[in-house]
Amino acid sequence: MKNICLEISYDGTEYSGFQSQPNGNTVQDKLEEAIFRLTREKPKVISSGRTDAGVHAKSQWINFHTNSQIPINRWRMALNTNLPEDIAALSAYEVPMEFHARRHARKKTYRYSINTMPSPDVFRRRFEYHLPVPLWVGRMREAASWLIGTHDFTSFCSARTILENKVRTIYELRIEASSDDAFRGRIELFVTGSGFLYNMVRIIAGTLIEVGKGKRKPADLAQIRDSKDRTRAGLTAPAHGLTLWRVEYDAQYNLSGRLDSSDIM
Amino acid sequence: MKNICLEISYDGTEYSGFQSQPNGNTVQDKLEEAIFRLTREKPKVISSGRTDAGVHAKSQWINFHTNSQIPINRWRMALNTNLPEDIAALSAYEVPMEFHARRHARKKTYRYSINTMPSPDVFRRRFEYHLPVPLWVGRMREAASWLIGTHDFTSFCSARTILENKVRTIYELRIEASSDDAFRGRIELFVTGSGFLYNMVRIIAGTLIEVGKGKRKPADLAQIRDSKDRTRAGLTAPAHGLTLWRVEYDAQYNLSGRLDSSDIM
Repeated sequence: MKNICLEISYDGTEYSGFQSQPNGNTVQDKLEEAIFRLTREKPKVISSGRTDAGVHAKSQWINFHTNSQIPINRWRMALNTNLPEDIAALSAYEVPMEFHARRHARKKTYRYSINTMPSPDVFRRRFEYHLPVPLWVGRMREAASWLIGTHDFTSFCSARTILENKVRTIYELRIEASSDDAFRGRIELFVTGSGFLYNMVRIIAGTLIEVGKGKRKPADLAQIRDSKDRTRAGLTAPAHGLTLWRVEYDAQYNLSGRLDSSDIM
Repeated sequence: MKNICLEISYDGTEYSGFQSQPNGNTVQDKLEEAIFRLTREKPKVISSGRTDAGVHAKSQWINFHTNSQIPINRWRMALNTNLPEDIAALSAYEVPMEFHARRHARKKTYRYSINTMPSPDVFRRRFEYHLPVPLWVGRMREAASWLIGTHDFTSFCSARTILENKVRTIYELRIEASSDDAFRGRIELFVTGSGFLYNMVRIIAGTLIEVGKGKRKPADLAQIRDSKDRTRAGLTAPAHGLTLWRVEYDAQYNLSGRLDSSDIM
Protein backbone atom coordinates (compact mmCIF):
# COMPACT_ATOMS: atom_id res chain seq x y z
CA MET A 1 0.00 0.00 0.00
CA LYS A 2 1.25 3.45 -0.95
CA ASN A 3 0.10 6.95 -0.08
CA ILE A 4 0.03 9.14 -3.19
CA CYS A 5 -0.11 12.92 -2.89
CA LEU A 6 -0.91 15.18 -5.83
CA GLU A 7 -1.04 18.86 -6.52
CA ILE A 8 -4.00 19.58 -8.78
CA SER A 9 -5.74 22.61 -10.25
CA TYR A 10 -9.27 23.03 -11.51
CA ASP A 11 -11.66 25.44 -13.12
CA GLY A 12 -14.62 24.98 -10.75
CA THR A 13 -17.20 26.60 -13.04
CA GLU A 14 -18.95 23.39 -14.04
CA TYR A 15 -18.74 21.56 -10.69
CA SER A 16 -20.87 21.33 -7.57
CA GLY A 17 -17.75 21.92 -5.50
CA PHE A 18 -14.91 19.62 -4.50
CA GLN A 19 -16.62 17.22 -2.16
CA SER A 20 -18.37 14.13 -3.48
CA GLN A 21 -22.15 14.33 -3.86
CA PRO A 22 -24.86 11.91 -4.95
CA ASN A 23 -25.19 13.66 -8.33
CA GLY A 24 -21.52 12.91 -8.95
CA ASN A 25 -20.66 16.23 -10.52
CA THR A 26 -17.82 17.18 -8.20
CA VAL A 27 -14.06 17.40 -8.51
CA GLN A 28 -13.63 14.55 -6.00
CA ASP A 29 -15.93 12.33 -8.08
CA LYS A 30 -13.94 13.06 -11.25
CA LEU A 31 -10.67 12.27 -9.47
CA GLU A 32 -12.03 9.03 -8.02
CA GLU A 33 -13.39 8.00 -11.42
CA ALA A 34 -10.00 8.63 -13.04
CA ILE A 35 -8.20 6.64 -10.30
CA PHE A 36 -10.69 3.81 -10.75
CA ARG A 37 -10.05 3.67 -14.49
CA LEU A 38 -6.31 3.44 -13.80
CA THR A 39 -6.32 1.02 -10.87
CA ARG A 40 -9.77 -0.64 -10.59
CA GLU A 41 -9.55 0.52 -6.97
CA LYS A 42 -11.96 2.93 -5.30
CA PRO A 43 -9.88 4.85 -2.77
CA LYS A 44 -11.36 7.87 -1.02
CA VAL A 45 -9.63 11.02 -2.19
CA ILE A 46 -8.78 13.40 0.66
CA SER A 47 -8.21 17.09 -0.12
CA SER A 48 -6.70 19.94 1.89
CA GLY A 49 -10.30 21.09 2.25
CA ARG A 50 -13.46 21.27 0.23
CA THR A 51 -14.13 24.17 -2.13
CA ASP A 52 -17.68 25.33 -2.81
CA ALA A 53 -19.61 25.07 -6.08
CA GLY A 54 -18.05 27.36 -8.67
CA VAL A 55 -14.83 27.95 -6.69
CA HIS A 56 -11.52 27.22 -8.45
CA ALA A 57 -8.14 25.93 -7.35
CA LYS A 58 -4.80 26.97 -8.75
CA SER A 59 -3.13 24.66 -6.24
CA GLN A 60 -5.16 22.10 -4.33
CA TRP A 61 -3.52 19.09 -2.66
CA ILE A 62 -5.00 15.63 -2.38
CA ASN A 63 -3.92 12.20 -1.21
CA PHE A 64 -5.19 8.64 -1.46
CA HIS A 65 -4.03 5.10 -0.65
CA THR A 66 -3.49 2.57 -3.39
CA ASN A 67 -1.99 -0.85 -4.07
CA SER A 68 -1.35 0.15 -7.68
CA GLN A 69 2.13 -0.44 -9.07
CA ILE A 70 1.98 2.69 -11.26
CA PRO A 71 5.40 4.37 -10.75
CA ILE A 72 5.19 7.72 -9.00
CA ASN A 73 6.58 9.57 -12.02
CA ARG A 74 3.70 8.26 -14.17
CA TRP A 75 0.80 9.31 -11.98
CA ARG A 76 0.56 12.92 -13.14
CA MET A 77 0.29 12.06 -16.82
CA ALA A 78 -1.87 8.96 -16.24
CA LEU A 79 -4.41 11.06 -14.34
CA ASN A 80 -4.37 13.90 -16.86
CA THR A 81 -5.21 11.43 -19.60
CA ASN A 82 -8.27 10.36 -17.59
CA LEU A 83 -9.46 13.70 -16.19
CA PRO A 84 -11.78 16.21 -17.88
CA GLU A 85 -9.98 19.22 -19.36
CA ASP A 86 -10.98 21.53 -16.50
CA ILE A 87 -9.09 19.45 -13.91
CA ALA A 88 -5.32 18.90 -14.14
CA ALA A 89 -2.73 17.08 -12.04
CA LEU A 90 0.40 19.25 -11.68
CA SER A 91 2.72 16.94 -9.75
CA ALA A 92 2.73 13.68 -7.77
CA TYR A 93 4.69 12.49 -4.74
CA GLU A 94 4.79 9.33 -2.70
CA VAL A 95 4.37 10.38 0.93
CA PRO A 96 4.52 8.60 4.31
CA MET A 97 1.41 6.54 5.06
CA GLU A 98 0.34 8.88 7.87
CA PHE A 99 0.24 11.94 5.61
CA HIS A 100 -3.29 13.39 5.38
CA ALA A 101 -3.93 16.27 2.96
CA ARG A 102 -6.47 17.96 5.25
CA ARG A 103 -5.11 17.26 8.72
CA HIS A 104 -1.55 18.20 7.84
CA ALA A 105 -2.36 21.41 5.98
CA ARG A 106 -0.88 24.25 8.03
CA LYS A 107 -1.83 27.35 6.07
CA LYS A 108 -4.05 28.06 3.13
CA THR A 109 -4.17 31.05 0.83
CA TYR A 110 -7.22 32.02 -1.19
CA ARG A 111 -7.38 34.68 -3.86
CA TYR A 112 -10.54 36.71 -4.42
CA SER A 113 -10.36 38.58 -7.73
CA ILE A 114 -12.48 41.61 -8.63
CA ASN A 115 -12.51 43.44 -11.98
CA THR A 116 -13.83 46.98 -11.67
CA MET A 117 -13.30 47.95 -15.32
CA PRO A 118 -16.44 49.15 -17.13
CA SER A 119 -16.55 46.11 -19.45
CA PRO A 120 -16.08 42.48 -18.44
CA ASP A 121 -12.90 40.64 -19.42
CA VAL A 122 -14.24 37.76 -21.50
CA PHE A 123 -11.04 35.75 -20.96
CA ARG A 124 -11.16 35.89 -17.17
CA ARG A 125 -14.90 36.07 -16.69
CA ARG A 126 -15.05 32.63 -15.08
CA PHE A 127 -12.36 33.52 -12.53
CA GLU A 128 -13.13 37.06 -11.41
CA TYR A 129 -16.10 39.02 -10.14
CA HIS A 130 -16.96 41.82 -12.57
CA LEU A 131 -18.14 44.77 -10.51
CA PRO A 132 -17.96 47.82 -12.78
CA VAL A 133 -17.68 50.50 -10.08
CA PRO A 134 -14.45 52.09 -8.78
CA LEU A 135 -13.42 50.79 -5.34
CA TRP A 136 -11.30 52.69 -2.81
CA VAL A 137 -8.45 50.27 -2.42
CA GLY A 138 -6.73 52.17 0.41
CA ARG A 139 -9.89 51.99 2.52
CA MET A 140 -10.25 48.29 1.79
CA ARG A 141 -6.68 47.75 3.00
CA GLU A 142 -7.35 49.69 6.18
CA ALA A 143 -10.51 47.66 6.82
CA ALA A 144 -8.68 44.40 6.15
CA SER A 145 -6.16 45.16 8.90
CA TRP A 146 -8.91 44.58 11.51
CA LEU A 147 -9.24 40.98 10.46
CA ILE A 148 -5.59 39.98 10.73
CA GLY A 149 -4.75 37.86 13.76
CA THR A 150 -6.66 35.31 15.82
CA HIS A 151 -10.36 36.15 16.17
CA ASP A 152 -13.78 34.61 16.48
CA PHE A 153 -15.02 34.87 12.86
CA THR A 154 -18.71 34.11 13.57
CA SER A 155 -19.67 37.35 11.76
CA PHE A 156 -17.85 36.15 8.67
CA CYS A 157 -19.24 32.68 8.22
CA SER A 158 -22.48 31.33 6.90
CA ALA A 159 -25.21 31.36 9.56
CA ARG A 160 -25.72 27.70 8.61
CA THR A 161 -22.34 26.81 10.13
CA ILE A 162 -22.84 24.50 13.12
CA LEU A 163 -19.22 24.26 14.29
CA GLU A 164 -18.68 25.16 17.94
CA ASN A 165 -15.32 26.83 17.52
CA LYS A 166 -15.24 29.73 15.10
CA VAL A 167 -11.88 31.04 16.16
CA ARG A 168 -9.44 31.18 13.27
CA THR A 169 -6.17 32.94 12.53
CA ILE A 170 -5.60 35.14 9.50
CA TYR A 171 -1.86 35.53 8.99
CA GLU A 172 -2.05 37.87 6.05
CA LEU A 173 -4.70 39.73 4.08
CA ARG A 174 -2.99 41.43 1.15
CA ILE A 175 -4.81 43.51 -1.43
CA GLU A 176 -3.04 43.84 -4.77
CA ALA A 177 -4.08 46.67 -7.07
CA SER A 178 -2.17 49.24 -9.06
CA SER A 179 -3.72 52.16 -7.13
CA ASP A 180 -4.76 53.14 -3.63
CA ASP A 181 -7.57 55.39 -4.77
CA ALA A 182 -10.98 54.79 -6.26
CA PHE A 183 -9.77 52.33 -8.81
CA ARG A 184 -10.76 50.87 -12.15
CA GLY A 185 -8.88 47.67 -12.79
CA ARG A 186 -8.14 44.35 -11.21
CA ILE A 187 -8.18 44.08 -7.42
CA GLU A 188 -6.95 40.83 -5.90
CA LEU A 189 -7.38 39.88 -2.24
CA PHE A 190 -4.97 37.22 -0.99
CA VAL A 191 -6.07 35.81 2.35
CA THR A 192 -3.77 33.43 4.22
CA GLY A 193 -5.07 31.64 7.29
CA SER A 194 -4.86 28.57 9.46
CA GLY A 195 -8.20 27.45 8.11
CA PHE A 196 -11.44 28.99 6.96
CA LEU A 197 -15.08 28.73 7.98
CA TYR A 198 -17.87 28.13 5.49
CA ASN A 199 -18.07 31.11 3.05
CA MET A 200 -15.55 33.02 5.19
CA VAL A 201 -13.37 34.40 2.38
CA ARG A 202 -16.39 35.32 0.28
CA ILE A 203 -18.05 37.18 3.18
CA ILE A 204 -14.78 39.00 3.95
CA ALA A 205 -14.52 39.94 0.25
CA GLY A 206 -18.16 41.08 0.16
CA THR A 207 -17.68 43.23 3.27
CA LEU A 208 -14.43 44.78 2.02
CA ILE A 209 -16.16 45.57 -1.29
CA GLU A 210 -18.80 47.56 0.64
CA VAL A 211 -15.96 49.50 2.31
CA GLY A 212 -14.41 50.06 -1.13
CA LYS A 213 -17.70 51.48 -2.37
CA GLY A 214 -17.85 53.88 0.58
CA LYS A 215 -20.94 52.23 2.10
CA ARG A 216 -19.02 51.33 5.26
CA LYS A 217 -16.04 52.82 7.06
CA PRO A 218 -12.82 50.83 7.50
CA ALA A 219 -13.12 50.92 11.30
CA ASP A 220 -16.59 49.34 11.07
CA LEU A 221 -14.79 46.04 10.58
CA ALA A 222 -13.75 46.00 14.25
CA GLN A 223 -17.38 46.26 15.38
CA ILE A 224 -18.61 43.75 12.81
CA ARG A 225 -15.95 41.30 13.95
CA ASP A 226 -16.69 41.77 17.66
CA SER A 227 -20.47 41.51 17.22
CA LYS A 228 -20.20 37.80 16.30
CA ASP A 229 -23.32 38.37 14.21
CA ARG A 230 -23.38 37.30 10.54
CA THR A 231 -26.06 39.86 9.72
CA ARG A 232 -23.66 42.72 10.52
CA ALA A 233 -21.17 41.79 7.79
CA GLY A 234 -21.63 42.33 4.05
CA LEU A 235 -23.02 40.13 1.32
CA THR A 236 -21.31 36.91 0.31
CA ALA A 237 -19.29 37.74 -2.81
CA PRO A 238 -19.94 35.42 -5.81
CA ALA A 239 -18.20 32.03 -5.79
CA HIS A 240 -16.58 32.38 -9.22
CA GLY A 241 -14.20 35.13 -8.03
CA LEU A 242 -12.62 32.76 -5.49
CA THR A 243 -9.60 30.53 -6.11
CA LEU A 244 -7.71 28.30 -3.68
CA TRP A 245 -4.23 29.63 -4.33
CA ARG A 246 -1.76 27.80 -2.10
CA VAL A 247 -1.65 25.18 0.66
CA GLU A 248 1.34 24.87 2.96
CA TYR A 249 2.41 21.66 4.70
CA ASP A 250 5.01 20.95 7.33
CA ALA A 251 8.49 21.03 5.87
CA GLN A 252 9.01 17.35 6.72
CA TYR A 253 6.72 16.37 3.83
CA ASN A 254 8.76 18.43 1.41
CA LEU A 255 5.70 19.38 -0.65
CA SER A 256 5.18 23.14 -0.53
CA GLY A 257 7.31 25.12 -2.86
CA ARG A 258 8.65 22.10 -4.69
CA LEU A 259 7.02 23.29 -7.83
CA ASP A 260 7.23 26.66 -9.41
CA SER A 261 3.62 27.11 -10.30
CA SER A 262 4.16 30.75 -11.28
CA ASP A 263 3.48 29.82 -14.88
CA ILE A 264 -0.11 29.18 -14.00
CA MET A 265 -2.48 32.18 -14.15
CA MET B 1 -27.79 58.08 -40.10
CA LYS B 2 -24.72 57.53 -37.98
CA ASN B 3 -21.70 55.30 -38.31
CA ILE B 4 -20.93 53.58 -35.01
CA CYS B 5 -17.54 51.98 -34.41
CA LEU B 6 -16.89 49.63 -31.49
CA GLU B 7 -13.93 47.83 -30.02
CA ILE B 8 -15.05 44.38 -28.89
CA SER B 9 -13.45 41.25 -27.44
CA TYR B 10 -14.64 37.68 -27.49
CA ASP B 11 -13.87 34.19 -26.33
CA GLY B 12 -14.35 32.36 -29.64
CA THR B 13 -14.54 28.87 -28.12
CA GLU B 14 -18.28 28.42 -28.64
CA TYR B 15 -18.59 30.17 -32.02
CA SER B 16 -18.33 29.14 -35.67
CA GLY B 17 -16.08 32.16 -36.24
CA PHE B 18 -16.86 35.83 -36.69
CA GLN B 19 -18.65 35.88 -40.02
CA SER B 20 -22.38 35.30 -40.21
CA GLN B 21 -23.52 31.82 -41.19
CA PRO B 22 -26.89 30.18 -41.76
CA ASN B 23 -26.69 28.33 -38.42
CA GLY B 24 -26.44 31.72 -36.71
CA ASN B 25 -23.80 30.72 -34.18
CA THR B 26 -21.24 33.38 -35.00
CA VAL B 27 -19.99 36.52 -33.31
CA GLN B 28 -21.45 38.68 -36.09
CA ASP B 29 -24.87 37.07 -35.61
CA LYS B 30 -24.76 37.73 -31.86
CA LEU B 31 -23.80 41.37 -32.46
CA GLU B 32 -26.53 41.87 -35.06
CA GLU B 33 -29.10 40.26 -32.74
CA ALA B 34 -28.08 42.59 -29.91
CA ILE B 35 -28.26 45.66 -32.20
CA PHE B 36 -31.69 44.52 -33.39
CA ARG B 37 -32.97 44.23 -29.82
CA LEU B 38 -31.77 47.78 -29.14
CA THR B 39 -32.83 49.48 -32.37
CA ARG B 40 -35.25 47.20 -34.30
CA GLU B 41 -32.85 47.80 -37.19
CA LYS B 42 -30.89 45.09 -38.97
CA PRO B 43 -27.64 46.73 -40.03
CA LYS B 44 -24.82 44.62 -41.40
CA VAL B 45 -21.92 44.57 -38.94
CA ILE B 46 -18.54 45.02 -40.63
CA SER B 47 -15.40 43.81 -38.82
CA SER B 48 -11.70 44.44 -39.39
CA GLY B 49 -11.67 40.89 -40.74
CA ARG B 50 -13.24 37.54 -40.02
CA THR B 51 -11.75 35.22 -37.43
CA ASP B 52 -12.09 31.45 -37.82
CA ALA B 53 -14.10 29.06 -35.64
CA GLY B 54 -12.55 28.88 -32.18
CA VAL B 55 -10.31 31.93 -32.66
CA HIS B 56 -10.55 34.71 -30.05
CA ALA B 57 -10.25 38.48 -30.13
CA LYS B 58 -8.79 40.65 -27.41
CA SER B 59 -9.39 43.67 -29.62
CA GLN B 60 -11.58 43.41 -32.70
CA TRP B 61 -13.10 46.50 -34.34
CA ILE B 62 -16.51 46.68 -35.97
CA ASN B 63 -18.75 49.34 -37.47
CA PHE B 64 -22.37 49.61 -38.58
CA HIS B 65 -24.80 52.28 -39.73
CA THR B 66 -27.86 53.16 -37.70
CA ASN B 67 -30.64 55.71 -37.37
CA SER B 68 -30.87 54.99 -33.66
CA GLN B 69 -30.84 57.95 -31.27
CA ILE B 70 -28.91 55.99 -28.61
CA PRO B 71 -26.20 58.44 -27.41
CA ILE B 72 -22.69 57.30 -28.25
CA ASN B 73 -21.72 57.01 -24.58
CA ARG B 74 -24.55 54.52 -24.00
CA TRP B 75 -23.74 52.06 -26.77
CA ARG B 76 -21.07 50.08 -24.93
CA MET B 77 -23.24 49.30 -21.92
CA ALA B 78 -26.41 48.81 -23.99
CA LEU B 79 -24.69 46.19 -26.11
CA ASN B 80 -23.09 44.44 -23.15
CA THR B 81 -26.52 44.04 -21.59
CA ASN B 82 -27.67 42.29 -24.76
CA LEU B 83 -24.60 40.21 -25.63
CA PRO B 84 -23.72 36.73 -24.33
CA GLU B 85 -21.06 36.71 -21.63
CA ASP B 86 -18.31 35.58 -24.00
CA ILE B 87 -18.60 38.73 -26.14
CA ALA B 88 -18.00 42.21 -24.70
CA ALA B 89 -18.03 45.73 -26.10
CA LEU B 90 -15.04 47.67 -24.76
CA SER B 91 -15.64 51.13 -26.23
CA ALA B 92 -17.77 52.97 -28.79
CA TYR B 93 -17.10 55.90 -31.11
CA GLU B 94 -19.10 57.82 -33.68
CA VAL B 95 -16.98 57.89 -36.82
CA PRO B 96 -17.26 59.58 -40.25
CA MET B 97 -19.78 57.87 -42.56
CA GLU B 98 -17.05 56.63 -44.91
CA PHE B 99 -15.20 54.73 -42.15
CA HIS B 100 -15.12 50.99 -42.88
CA ALA B 101 -13.66 48.65 -40.24
CA ARG B 102 -12.14 46.28 -42.81
CA ARG B 103 -11.07 48.60 -45.62
CA HIS B 104 -9.45 51.13 -43.31
CA ALA B 105 -7.56 48.63 -41.13
CA ARG B 106 -3.85 49.27 -41.74
CA LYS B 107 -2.15 46.67 -39.56
CA LYS B 108 -3.30 43.72 -37.54
CA THR B 109 -1.53 41.83 -34.80
CA TYR B 110 -2.38 38.27 -33.86
CA ARG B 111 -1.05 36.38 -30.87
CA TYR B 112 -0.46 32.64 -31.01
CA SER B 113 0.02 31.22 -27.50
CA ILE B 114 1.71 27.89 -26.73
CA ASN B 115 2.08 26.30 -23.29
CA THR B 116 4.91 23.74 -23.20
CA MET B 117 4.61 22.94 -19.48
CA PRO B 118 4.01 19.25 -18.68
CA SER B 119 0.48 19.85 -17.38
CA PRO B 120 -2.20 22.00 -19.00
CA ASP B 121 -3.18 25.31 -17.41
CA VAL B 122 -6.89 24.83 -16.73
CA PHE B 123 -7.45 28.59 -16.55
CA ARG B 124 -6.00 29.34 -19.97
CA ARG B 125 -6.83 26.09 -21.69
CA ARG B 126 -9.31 27.77 -24.03
CA PHE B 127 -6.77 30.37 -25.15
CA GLU B 128 -3.50 28.52 -25.57
CA TYR B 129 -2.24 25.40 -27.32
CA HIS B 130 -0.94 22.91 -24.75
CA LEU B 131 2.04 21.17 -26.32
CA PRO B 132 3.96 19.50 -23.47
CA VAL B 133 7.37 19.32 -25.15
CA PRO B 134 10.25 21.79 -24.77
CA LEU B 135 10.68 24.08 -27.79
CA TRP B 136 13.93 25.76 -28.85
CA VAL B 137 12.84 29.37 -28.75
CA GLY B 138 16.06 30.77 -30.21
CA ARG B 139 15.68 28.59 -33.31
CA MET B 140 12.05 29.62 -33.67
CA ARG B 141 13.14 33.27 -33.60
CA GLU B 142 15.78 32.65 -36.24
CA ALA B 143 13.24 30.86 -38.44
CA ALA B 144 10.71 33.65 -37.97
CA SER B 145 13.16 36.22 -39.34
CA TRP B 146 12.74 34.66 -42.83
CA LEU B 147 9.10 35.62 -42.88
CA ILE B 148 9.47 39.29 -42.06
CA GLY B 149 8.97 41.63 -44.98
CA THR B 150 6.88 41.50 -48.15
CA HIS B 151 6.59 37.99 -49.60
CA ASP B 152 4.28 35.70 -51.49
CA PHE B 153 2.81 33.63 -48.64
CA THR B 154 1.27 30.87 -50.78
CA SER B 155 3.14 28.26 -48.72
CA PHE B 156 1.53 29.61 -45.56
CA CYS B 157 -2.11 29.70 -46.52
CA SER B 158 -4.80 27.09 -46.83
CA ALA B 159 -4.66 25.32 -50.19
CA ARG B 160 -8.37 26.15 -50.43
CA THR B 161 -7.54 29.86 -50.80
CA ILE B 162 -8.63 31.09 -54.23
CA LEU B 163 -7.26 34.64 -54.04
CA GLU B 164 -4.98 35.63 -56.90
CA ASN B 165 -2.64 37.80 -54.90
CA LYS B 166 -0.97 36.09 -51.98
CA VAL B 167 1.64 38.77 -51.39
CA ARG B 168 1.45 40.16 -47.86
CA THR B 169 3.75 42.14 -45.59
CA ILE B 170 4.77 40.98 -42.13
CA TYR B 171 6.09 43.99 -40.22
CA GLU B 172 7.02 42.15 -37.07
CA LEU B 173 7.09 38.57 -35.80
CA ARG B 174 8.04 38.68 -32.14
CA ILE B 175 8.38 35.58 -29.96
CA GLU B 176 8.00 36.20 -26.25
CA ALA B 177 9.34 33.58 -23.85
CA SER B 178 11.48 33.70 -20.75
CA SER B 179 14.24 31.61 -22.34
CA ASP B 180 16.08 31.15 -25.64
CA ASP B 181 16.76 27.47 -25.07
CA ALA B 182 14.61 24.35 -25.12
CA PHE B 183 11.92 25.81 -22.99
CA ARG B 184 9.10 24.72 -20.69
CA GLY B 185 6.65 27.55 -20.19
CA ARG B 186 4.53 29.97 -22.18
CA ILE B 187 5.65 30.95 -25.66
CA GLU B 188 3.74 33.73 -27.38
CA LEU B 189 4.09 34.63 -31.05
CA PHE B 190 2.96 38.15 -31.96
CA VAL B 191 2.60 38.57 -35.72
CA THR B 192 1.90 42.04 -37.12
CA GLY B 193 1.04 42.36 -40.80
CA SER B 194 -0.80 44.34 -43.42
CA GLY B 195 -3.32 41.54 -43.70
CA PHE B 196 -3.38 37.77 -43.46
CA LEU B 197 -4.38 34.94 -45.77
CA TYR B 198 -6.66 32.11 -44.68
CA ASN B 199 -5.00 30.13 -41.83
CA MET B 200 -1.76 32.06 -42.38
CA VAL B 201 -0.89 32.74 -38.73
CA ARG B 202 -1.80 29.19 -37.69
CA ILE B 203 0.38 27.68 -40.46
CA ILE B 204 3.27 29.99 -39.52
CA ALA B 205 2.84 28.94 -35.87
CA GLY B 206 2.66 25.26 -36.81
CA THR B 207 5.82 25.53 -38.92
CA LEU B 208 7.76 27.44 -36.25
CA ILE B 209 6.71 24.79 -33.71
CA GLU B 210 8.34 22.13 -35.92
CA VAL B 211 11.52 24.23 -35.91
CA GLY B 212 11.25 24.53 -32.13
CA LYS B 213 11.02 20.74 -31.85
CA GLY B 214 14.14 20.34 -33.97
CA LYS B 215 12.29 18.69 -36.87
CA ARG B 216 13.25 21.50 -39.24
CA LYS B 217 16.13 23.94 -39.42
CA PRO B 218 15.58 27.68 -39.13
CA ALA B 219 16.92 28.31 -42.64
CA ASP B 220 14.36 25.86 -44.07
CA LEU B 221 11.87 28.68 -43.77
CA ALA B 222 13.47 30.49 -46.71
CA GLN B 223 12.98 27.47 -48.99
CA ILE B 224 9.47 26.80 -47.73
CA ARG B 225 8.56 30.43 -48.38
CA ASP B 226 10.09 30.48 -51.88
CA SER B 227 8.52 27.16 -52.91
CA LYS B 228 5.01 28.70 -52.88
CA ASP B 229 3.76 25.23 -51.99
CA ARG B 230 1.47 24.71 -49.00
CA THR B 231 2.60 21.10 -48.59
CA ARG B 232 6.14 22.25 -47.74
CA ALA B 233 5.10 24.15 -44.61
CA GLY B 234 4.10 22.62 -41.28
CA LEU B 235 0.74 21.65 -39.86
CA THR B 236 -1.93 24.23 -39.12
CA ALA B 237 -1.71 24.93 -35.38
CA PRO B 238 -5.03 24.58 -33.49
CA ALA B 239 -7.45 27.50 -33.68
CA HIS B 240 -7.90 27.95 -29.94
CA GLY B 241 -4.31 29.20 -29.46
CA LEU B 242 -4.97 32.18 -31.75
CA THR B 243 -6.21 35.60 -30.65
CA LEU B 244 -6.70 38.75 -32.70
CA TRP B 245 -4.68 41.11 -30.52
CA ARG B 246 -4.70 44.56 -32.09
CA VAL B 247 -5.96 46.41 -35.16
CA GLU B 248 -4.47 49.72 -36.22
CA TYR B 249 -6.31 52.41 -38.18
CA ASP B 250 -5.17 55.63 -39.78
CA ALA B 251 -4.55 58.29 -37.18
CA GLN B 252 -7.30 60.46 -38.65
CA TYR B 253 -9.92 58.17 -37.12
CA ASN B 254 -8.36 58.51 -33.70
CA LEU B 255 -9.24 54.94 -32.73
CA SER B 256 -6.08 52.94 -32.08
CA GLY B 257 -4.54 53.43 -28.72
CA ARG B 258 -7.42 55.43 -27.31
CA LEU B 259 -8.01 52.74 -24.77
CA ASP B 260 -5.54 51.15 -22.47
CA SER B 261 -6.57 47.56 -22.87
CA SER B 262 -3.57 46.29 -20.93
CA ASP B 263 -5.92 45.24 -18.16
CA ILE B 264 -7.26 42.55 -20.43
CA MET B 265 -5.44 39.21 -20.43
